[in-house]
Amino acid sequence: MRIAVDIMSGDNSPEKLINGVLRAAADFGVEIALIGDKAVVEQYSDEAKGIYPFPSEGVVTMEDDALAAIKEKENSSMGHGINLMKSGEADAFVSPGNTGALLSAASIKLRRVKGIRRAAIGTVVPLDKPFIMVDAGANIDVLPENLCQFGYMGSLYAEKVLGVDKPRVALLCNGTERTKGLPVTKAAYELLETAGLNFIGNVESRELPFGCCDVLVCDGFTGNIALKLIEGMGKFMSNTINGIFRRNLLTKLAYLPCRRNIKALKKRMDAREAGGAPLLGVAKPVIKAHGNSDDVCIYNAIRQAKVYTEAGIISEFEKKFGRSDTDGTQNGVSSAD
Amino acid sequence: MRIAVDIMSGDNSPEKLINGVLRAAADFGVEIALIGDKAVVEQYSDEAKGIYPFPSEGVVTMEDDALAAIKEKENSSMGHGINLMKSGEADAFVSPGNTGALLSAASIKLRRVKGIRRAAIGTVVPLDKPFIMVDAGANIDVLPENLCQFGYMGSLYAEKVLGVDKPRVALLCNGTERTKGLPVTKAAYELLETAGLNFIGNVESRELPFGCCDVLVCDGFTGNIALKLIEGMGKFMSNTINGIFRRNLLTKLAYLPCRRNIKALKKRMDAREAGGAPLLGVAKPVIKAHGNSDDVCIYNAIRQAKVYTEAGIISEFEKKFGRSDTDGTQNGVSSAD
Repeated sequence: MRIAVDIMSGDNSPEKLINGVLRAAADFGVEIALIGDKAVVEQYSDEAKGIYPFPSEGVVTMEDDALAAIKEKENSSMGHGINLMKSGEADAFVSPGNTGALLSAASIKLRRVKGIRRAAIGTVVPLDKPFIMVDAGANIDVLPENLCQFGYMGSLYAEKVLGVDKPRVALLCNGTERTKGLPVTKAAYELLETAGLNFIGNVESRELPFGCCDVLVCDGFTGNIALKLIEGMGKFMSNTINGIFRRNLLTKLAYLPCRRNIKALKKRMDAREAGGAPLLGVAKPVIKAHGNSDDVCIYNAIRQAKVYTEAGIISEFEKKFGRSDTDGTQNGVSSAD
Repeated sequence: MRIAVDIMSGDNSPEKLINGVLRAAADFGVEIALIGDKAVVEQYSDEAKGIYPFPSEGVVTMEDDALAAIKEKENSSMGHGINLMKSGEADAFVSPGNTGALLSAASIKLRRVKGIRRAAIGTVVPLDKPFIMVDAGANIDVLPENLCQFGYMGSLYAEKVLGVDKPRVALLCNGTERTKGLPVTKAAYELLETAGLNFIGNVESRELPFGCCDVLVCDGFTGNIALKLIEGMGKFMSNTINGIFRRNLLTKLAYLPCRRNIKALKKRMDAREAGGAPLLGVAKPVIKAHGNSDDVCIYNAIRQAKVYTEAGIISEFEKKFGRSDTDGTQNGVSSAD
């Protein structure tokens, strides 16, 4: 298996990512197509270790308009990665770049799985017990059918990649009763109930830190806000804990017996450990790594890309949604493209 | 000033609330109309201390349908409180009961301020620097005009009750750029910009714990999810900190020098300290206390009711929105009723 890795378009310099890539190549037994500025990729490539250089020109920035970037920056690290996927030179692609551009490029050039109406970002949220949130920001406005498909894709991902048996799929809502929520939420509830999933109904956000579900279905607007709030509260918590111990000499001493617990906690809360976010519904495996990726994050995103590819999830999506082109609906999952 | 207090319809027994009411009467120099079951209110009333009994029959439960409750439970503690407001026997009303029922009863029987199209729940979120979220759950679907009015009401509340000079009003969004968000968010951005407020644009939820704004404008669906997530993450954080120190004898000893900091933090995070949520836009002062209110919470909610009433905020709303009936729009704030 060859995994293409864009080491240029994150917030950090390629040098901060490269160790993660080298470790991943060694640990996971995959070939790496290292995409980036010529000097960098040639310096770090090592064919004996399965790391091949793919020089690119320029980057898609975080500010670039998604559609303009696809057209105008075809030779950028991101554009090059998408092209390697299209030509079959790579089996999976990992990029820490502009989410909108990556999703648009992937959806347009690699296409969506037939029958899946909207690709979505599936983000694994760490906390006490990880869950996958679908959608975490790609689809600002959604139809009930989209939410139902998100539930299905998230469930399969949780089962095959996170190793959860019969994943509990829940709908993010402002109340647990089925009568709560926006019209789209209520309609999605009905569809999810008959979609053949282990659907447990609506969940309230206050339960999210306590392992209330394995798959959290939501629109991209709400999901993005929930995700960033978890991130912000996590940072707030980390600052707070540091503040407690930094106050004076005694509290600094008090840190010593607690430090192992604190480190374990921080690791558990660390989004970097969860890797990146699969672009669910895209016809080939693309993983969006965190924009602020470092070597740990890119290492885990490569692991994830490998598992996602090997698990054959995309062909399962094809079986589920592609098959039903004739009748338009299957188990409550509408599949018109 | 006489403040009506419903001590029956929260999750806790009236006995758990009563101390807060007694302390509030003593500390704030207000009269209390104590509403609840006859035996209880008669036991705790004390005319010398300005606490008068108002026996009621039954309660609106958390499960009751809002509109049915208003019709069928007029003599309940909540219904009685609303009636005391209507008849002018009380100047403000505090209730920990069913939010939907309280809001509906207040909107229908006490009416909204003329020109305000939707009443909203304004919840003060503690964290590092408190901010008021409007709407925290009353209006699931909103128009841009509603959001703009929420911004105005929240701003005045932050200024007069929270004591913030030129409150920074922000719109909760999935990105800071004005082009981000739902169609309703984008349209509200335009209105808020010209509403004569200190509007600072969109904020992302990850900044909320760090004092990024004084007034957070959002629809009730998103607001409710954000609010409950902050609550859940706060609880998660508190559990986590306890877990760090409870591990073994050494960590238990380590707690000692840290305990003052930890207690200060918990107090700062404690929603009870912030009091309750004003029903902004209702023509008379009504404060929704937390359903799980205890004596601290009800004490603070009474303080808040007093300040809200004294500050004359509602008559400011009337001046702002009532006046513009003729032209329909004023500073971007549409005011048709």
